[in-house]
Amino acid sequence: MNIYDVSRRAGVSIATVSRVLNGNPNVSEKTRTRVLAVMDELGYTPNVFARGLGLGTMKTIGIMCSDSSDPYLAGAIYHLERQLRSHGYDSLLCCTGPSLENKKTYFELLLSKRVDAVILAGSKFVELIGQNNDYLIEAAKELPIMLVNGYLDAPGIYSTVCNDYEAMYTAAARLIDSGRRNILYLYTSHSYSGLNKVEGYKNALTDRNIPVRREYIHQCSKDLNASRKLLEKLDRLGLVFDAVMTSDDSLAVGAVKYAAGKNIKIPDGLAVIGYNNSILSYCTTPEISSVDTKVEELCTTTVDTLMSVFNGGNVPAKTTIAAEFIQKQTTNFLC
Amino acid sequence: MNIYDVSRRAGVSIATVSRVLNGNPNVSEKTRTRVLAVMDELGYTPNVFARGLGLGTMKTIGIMCSDSSDPYLAGAIYHLERQLRSHGYDSLLCCTGPSLENKKTYFELLLSKRVDAVILAGSKFVELIGQNNDYLIEAAKELPIMLVNGYLDAPGIYSTVCNDYEAMYTAAARLIDSGRRNILYLYTSHSYSGLNKVEGYKNALTDRNIPVRREYIHQCSKDLNASRKLLEKLDRLGLVFDAVMTSDDSLAVGAVKYAAGKNIKIPDGLAVIGYNNSILSYCTTPEISSVDTKVEELCTTTVDTLMSVFNGGNVPAKTTIAAEFIQKQTTNFLC
Repeated sequence: MNIYDVSRRAGVSIATVSRVLNGNPNVSEKTRTRVLAVMDELGYTPNVFARGLGLGTMKTIGIMCSDSSDPYLAGAIYHLERQLRSHGYDSLLCCTGPSLENKKTYFELLLSKRVDAVILAGSKFVELIGQNNDYLIEAAKELPIMLVNGYLDAPGIYSTVCNDYEAMYTAAARLIDSGRRNILYLYTSHSYSGLNKVEGYKNALTDRNIPVRREYIHQCSKDLNASRKLLEKLDRLGLVFDAVMTSDDSLAVGAVKYAAGKNIKIPDGLAVIGYNNSILSYCTTPEISSVDTKVEELCTTTVDTLMSVFNGGNVPAKTTIAAEFIQKQTTNFLC
Repeated sequence: MNIYDVSRRAGVSIATVSRVLNGNPNVSEKTRTRVLAVMDELGYTPNVFARGLGLGTMKTIGIMCSDSSDPYLAGAIYHLERQLRSHGYDSLLCCTGPSLENKKTYFELLLSKRVDAVILAGSKFVELIGQNNDYLIEAAKELPIMLVNGYLDAPGIYSTVCNDYEAMYTAAARLIDSGRRNILYLYTSHSYSGLNKVEGYKNALTDRNIPVRREYIHQCSKDLNASRKLLEKLDRLGLVFDAVMTSDDSLAVGAVKYAAGKNIKIPDGLAVIGYNNSILSYCTTPEISSVDTKVEELCTTTVDTLMSVFNGGNVPAKTTIAAEFIQKQTTNFLC
């Protein structure tokens, strides 16, 4: 008999049960009465060790990511594990790969292990169309679901996001204000984060009376040479561009390789902007100006938020972290 | 009551208990009698689900690494998790950081969680001097300890290693045979793997009558610019070198940056060889020739070996995987 049984039977989240146990006023009278009735019915008594954190739990958090060897996600997992450990929680890691079917299977598995919460690392877990998020919305009735740089509006789901829109808008605006007019935008995915980024790019152009042209926006795989090949092709087709913005450093590395192959001088002949400020952006000559998406802060905040949920605190459904533009050698505007 | 209690009371490894339960002949009659006596005494009966794999266990493996955001270790963790999952095992991740004290603490923690085995990813877990490995040797009496690219000769410890010595010897020999005479060697650590690598370098020189000179061998941090700065300093001091071999791609990236800063043409003016063939070696222009240390194969073999241990199979204490030299653009010898 534990808090999950109570939460399930009462049809409320464990966070709500936790709130009731902690006497938190942020629970409706109707809900409080129902939860207490279920506890009574099930004969549930929280033991003396089960106050606040870790109420009769396994003290284990499931961490799901699509690919932990991606540099951004590898950093996120490292920080999540360290932070959870500092609160006495184990991290059960699941690398799901990209398929939705696999994600669902792993999720079921984590639920069956009775983890205390699930953290989804990376914005690829929230599908933006159709009923594909229903399994998350359903599960969030049973345990807290934390999204690291993803957003889904449903009870029991808590998001910590980076302000990708702002970051991309500002970077594009600076490029334009320093005289660039033909800015390519390369992106990897249509995730929540991905859509915010491209919106930032588009709005910066529109606000400065530069037309948003479809032939300047391209999807590209993360393979380091894919963006190089794409730029070579666009160049052959006669497209003129003086800057490349990307949704991921790996695409920017390809742009630097493209420029090296064509003897184009960076940044004078071509400005390049990466994203995530990962180790990749430091490998090239010149080093790539990029956006620090504050992955450590994102993870620390995610875990802090989770601990507040466990404590029955009043927790915002969405916390936003400010990104920071790191100018290195592939741009030359004033910051 | 489970297999651990039996193993502890009988003073044998769980692998041995497993062997007895599976009727494996690879157990001495004396040990078999003692194990069966303890089972009797404790009233232990393996249940119907507890045959072969996962005998009354949590089906959870602890994975320890010093830093999961390191590209090599991030890859290893990804493959270990996927492989363990395919056998129905959960992965409990522990990022220990570099301190021995922390490693010991985490190790104790994993033991207290009653994981079925511990996998130590990366060669930094085995200390080459003093009594610092005693805690591992002691623990291996209770559960299997798997080393990924580390080696420690003790019962219950199983190693899967890459033949770093061979790989480094061959690379150095090819450099010499193609006319290089002043080969710098930069390395990051004195781990098991680190010592094998430098031995390969030294022996290739000696076998070709080239003196091993202390001023050509330097330790360097993994920071991408540390090796660049070191090479600049050696150059200022008047040291002449026509090739740089490194124990990690990150050091090789710094060497390519050094050459770019000094307008030295690669590979004609300077050959550079990385190690691990990580994504970093593909980021630079020119791309860095490197040694593929077969991390996926290393991890698959580690997990396969572990499953054999659980099944009571006859398991070698050490399995060696062949590395492969990947020639890219920073070397020009014939392979």
